[in-house]
Amino acid sequence: MMLNLLFIGDIVGEPGRTAAMRALPELREEFGLDFIVVNGENAAGGRGITPKIAQELLRSGVDAITMGDHVWDQPDLIPWMDGEPRLLRPINYQQGTPGHGSVLLETPKGKVGVVQVQGRSFIQPPLENPFVVGEQEVLRLREEGAHAVLVDVHAETTSEKISLGYLLDGKASVVIGTHTHVQTADDMILPGGTAYLTDAGMCGPAVSVLGRDKDAVLKRFCTTLPSKFPVADWPVRLCGAVASIDMETGKAVRFERIQRMYEKNA
Amino acid sequence: MMLNLLFIGDIVGEPGRTAAMRALPELREEFGLDFIVVNGENAAGGRGITPKIAQELLRSGVDAITMGDHVWDQPDLIPWMDGEPRLLRPINYQQGTPGHGSVLLETPKGKVGVVQVQGRSFIQPPLENPFVVGEQEVLRLREEGAHAVLVDVHAETTSEKISLGYLLDGKASVVIGTHTHVQTADDMILPGGTAYLTDAGMCGPAVSVLGRDKDAVLKRFCTTLPSKFPVADWPVRLCGAVASIDMETGKAVRFERIQRMYEKNA
Amino acid sequence: MMLNLLFIGDIVGEPGRTAAMRALPELREEFGLDFIVVNGENAAGGRGITPKIAQELLRSGVDAITMGDHVWDQPDLIPWMDGEPRLLRPINYQQGTPGHGSVLLETPKGKVGVVQVQGRSFIQPPLENPFVVGEQEVLRLREEGAHAVLVDVHAETTSEKISLGYLLDGKASVVIGTHTHVQTADDMILPGGTAYLTDAGMCGPAVSVLGRDKDAVLKRFCTTLPSKFPVADWPVRLCGAVASIDMETGKAVRFERIQRMYEKNA
Amino acid sequence: MMLNLLFIGDIVGEPGRTAAMRALPELREEFGLDFIVVNGENAAGGRGITPKIAQELLRSGVDAITMGDHVWDQPDLIPWMDGEPRLLRPINYQQGTPGHGSVLLETPKGKVGVVQVQGRSFIQPPLENPFVVGEQEVLRLREEGAHAVLVDVHAETTSEKISLGYLLDGKASVVIGTHTHVQTADDMILPGGTAYLTDAGMCGPAVSVLGRDKDAVLKRFCTTLPSKFPVADWPVRLCGAVASIDMETGKAVRFERIQRMYEKNA
Ligand SMILES: [Fe+2]
Ligand SMILES: [Fe+2]
Ligand SMILES: [Fe+2]
Ligand SMILES: [Fe+2]
Ligand SMILES: [Fe+2]
Ligand SMILES: [Fe+2]
Ligand SMILES: [Fe+2]
Ligand SMILES: [Fe+2]
Repeated sequence: MMLNLLFIGDIVGEPGRTAAMRALPELREEFGLDFIVVNGENAAGGRGITPKIAQELLRSGVDAITMGDHVWDQPDLIPWMDGEPRLLRPINYQQGTPGHGSVLLETPKGKVGVVQVQGRSFIQPPLENPFVVGEQEVLRLREEGAHAVLVDVHAETTSEKISLGYLLDGKASVVIGTHTHVQTADDMILPGGTAYLTDAGMCGPAVSVLGRDKDAVLKRFCTTLPSKFPVADWPVRLCGAVASIDMETGKAVRFERIQRMYEKNA
Repeated sequence: MMLNLLFIGDIVGEPGRTAAMRALPELREEFGLDFIVVNGENAAGGRGITPKIAQELLRSGVDAITMGDHVWDQPDLIPWMDGEPRLLRPINYQQGTPGHGSVLLETPKGKVGVVQVQGRSFIQPPLENPFVVGEQEVLRLREEGAHAVLVDVHAETTSEKISLGYLLDGKASVVIGTHTHVQTADDMILPGGTAYLTDAGMCGPAVSVLGRDKDAVLKRFCTTLPSKFPVADWPVRLCGAVASIDMETGKAVRFERIQRMYEKNA
Repeated sequence: MMLNLLFIGDIVGEPGRTAAMRALPELREEFGLDFIVVNGENAAGGRGITPKIAQELLRSGVDAITMGDHVWDQPDLIPWMDGEPRLLRPINYQQGTPGHGSVLLETPKGKVGVVQVQGRSFIQPPLENPFVVGEQEVLRLREEGAHAVLVDVHAETTSEKISLGYLLDGKASVVIGTHTHVQTADDMILPGGTAYLTDAGMCGPAVSVLGRDKDAVLKRFCTTLPSKFPVADWPVRLCGAVASIDMETGKAVRFERIQRMYEKNA
Repeated sequence: MMLNLLFIGDIVGEPGRTAAMRALPELREEFGLDFIVVNGENAAGGRGITPKIAQELLRSGVDAITMGDHVWDQPDLIPWMDGEPRLLRPINYQQGTPGHGSVLLETPKGKVGVVQVQGRSFIQPPLENPFVVGEQEVLRLREEGAHAVLVDVHAETTSEKISLGYLLDGKASVVIGTHTHVQTADDMILPGGTAYLTDAGMCGPAVSVLGRDKDAVLKRFCTTLPSKFPVADWPVRLCGAVASIDMETGKAVRFERIQRMYEKNA
């Protein structure tokens, strides 16, 4: 039995959310999707996610939402997190941290585990070892009966992401990176059957710097003076990937990057 | 008149160099190449480049070599650099630094300028502002008669690279990133006619972490203990991009990413 | 003729300002002070300085105020800076940046120059080379007739600060560090006659972490969760140093660290 | 019963080691020392320590040696570490790391525990939370009968060091920082009885940048080009602190910084 899984990278602001929610039904049909994971760390005006936005995404057919270094940006989220197992922060926070780092969900085609780990190079705050913690958790989910496991690696450096791909090859079904907001072109199925992509890319304003107003960012880089970075406007480019996972083996058998453009009024 | 320009990302070690030099004649014919730029900062065992290797590449048909943060790794290179204008280090070093940061070369189809700038986020050493210095240099090369200008942005962050793309749109013909060793999937021609790609990707061992032995890198990440990272082995994936530039306007009219696999014995 | 110069390190919040302004008359008398420089980058609730606070300090007898990486925290300051030459930001920002990086002031005992440079290790934003720019500026002030020059080195690392001390030995009269908020015990007069201290220490709440509420900071370090860091309360420890400078030679002949405690109601 | 404990900061190179070993007998007599801890992370030519040097120090009367981020610089040390419980690396490495992070030693006056933790800001590699791990270990040593506990906080930032001081106040007898090589002037006994000093300073060449040749370091900062940093020469400044600890309560009752100069031929 084959499970078709869609992952969408960092959703940025209102344009990103609107486009993602509009796209889901058509992508579901096109790819025969069984399971959808999105990274939502920039969904609320670029800074974190609110419970309301998270609920909208989950009601629109998203099965799990991963976050990242922006997970604490919206203070409302923190008391709410413990009650929503489908909203994931990086698992390699120390014990006692609010929220969940992984989830195991039932689907008609079998159990699917989702884990997020965060890197430790050029990203804050300092966390526990994502290699040690991430591998343990994938194995634990497998022992708990996961037929497929997706790992979102939220990291700045390509070296951490690729290394986690190799470490988890044959253990996770999909290892996919987030945080840099630019899709990479290195999608592959590793020898052990793990679908790997260094970065999924974002779902946000296409003409922008990582989803933010390009002129504001440029001004800052040119002058080194601080400035606010509002979320840029439509059109939106939605970036992600679709994996087909053999639920007997947990291995990916197909893996495809996607990029779609969405206009404001469509 | 159209100039076809190939850029190859960070060449890693002996496998990377050998594959690049073997590939050049066939790529030249396939794409009707007029001009070839390669990033050579990891050509000598992963650490910098030697005069001998640089000369081999130049004799093999490479028109210019860009470097990056590894430019000073081979002490032999430093006294040699001043005499070879086709070997470029980042231009945003302060005045008085050995070597060249840009070059203007004659071709049968017109003058081509090449510039390298280095970012300032999560990369050492601290340099002058690449936005200010880079833009000035591109404009200066134009004033000196450059019909086309390529800028290699050697940087860790996607934000600096994309911002430089927008800043130089309509001024440079091609803005292409290096340093992360993973090709991105965001190749585009910006509104002003500049071909843009966040990272070209590397030309190095395909089964590796950034060209290095994956087990050595993994061991380091899993234990946090130091370890040596030898260059990995064949096969090699060569990554880069080909731009077709209208030499009347300096604008790119076609832009295409390339990835090719090379076996050791072919 | 001897000029007695007081430097006070980073003034933190209302307690720090109040203590500093209360202390100035007594310190002036005790040390026969001719010239007073304070670092004000944390004077406004820990974040930058406002024009109003700067004016209060200047009216209280402060001759010049240096800032640091917090210089842009108060948006009101930016339009005001150009009109107040005694308010200094790091000089090694690029050309065109608002505000002043140095000042040359007349005193009854001769001309005194003040310069601030900012380091480039572990401190943002990336700036021009403080060694090159700082040395040039000290020499320029000398040429403009400065009998004494004080340099505030706003930096995280001891290596940058000590190196600037040696570089400017015999050129500046005083080289004193700021930013770490902890006074160092390495006050010395270097062979060329420059009084040197790696960090002046702060003028702020004594029971605190760098002037901030210690429980809030501790909570963040223990949990790695974000938290607000309010300025802590009285008593205040005022840290700084007093140099006696021979205005014929520009050399320091005496150099003394000071630390004083101030209660809220005194 | 009072235990007099000496801590000496980062010993740098041959001059630092020679001076420290020469100083120990006279300091032992002067202060009636019962226990001596030194930081040895730069003892071997500035880079780590060898088993031979560690043994020399231990034979000279040193009771325990702490290290830091340079602990892995000498490959010979790694297989040797497990067999020498008095050689300490930061304890907040993950489980399975070679070597020891704490030790509990018998003395005629009672049991003394020594722990090293490493910070996580601007220092590599990324480690586990020093606040959580450090506090647990101090409490564990107390439970195992330690009458006094010294904690060496090897960290770049003053904020981490001060916060650990407050966290461990009343639990550890002495919390003392290392790594910046410059002694701070904030020695104090905290309300709970813990002697605290942000940085002990180094034991190394007095005319130097952190023990290294100042001209080499200056050249690097002025040019941003790489250069080698040999250990500088005599005279040596030995920096540290002496605490008198009440072995009934584990609280410090006296705490004094020391700085001594040593000429090569004395
Ligand atoms: Fe992120
Ligand atoms: Fe993001
Ligand atoms: Fe690089
Ligand atoms: Fe590279
Ligand atoms: Fe600062
Ligand atoms: Fe400050
Ligand atoms: Fe260290
Ligand atoms: Fe050290």
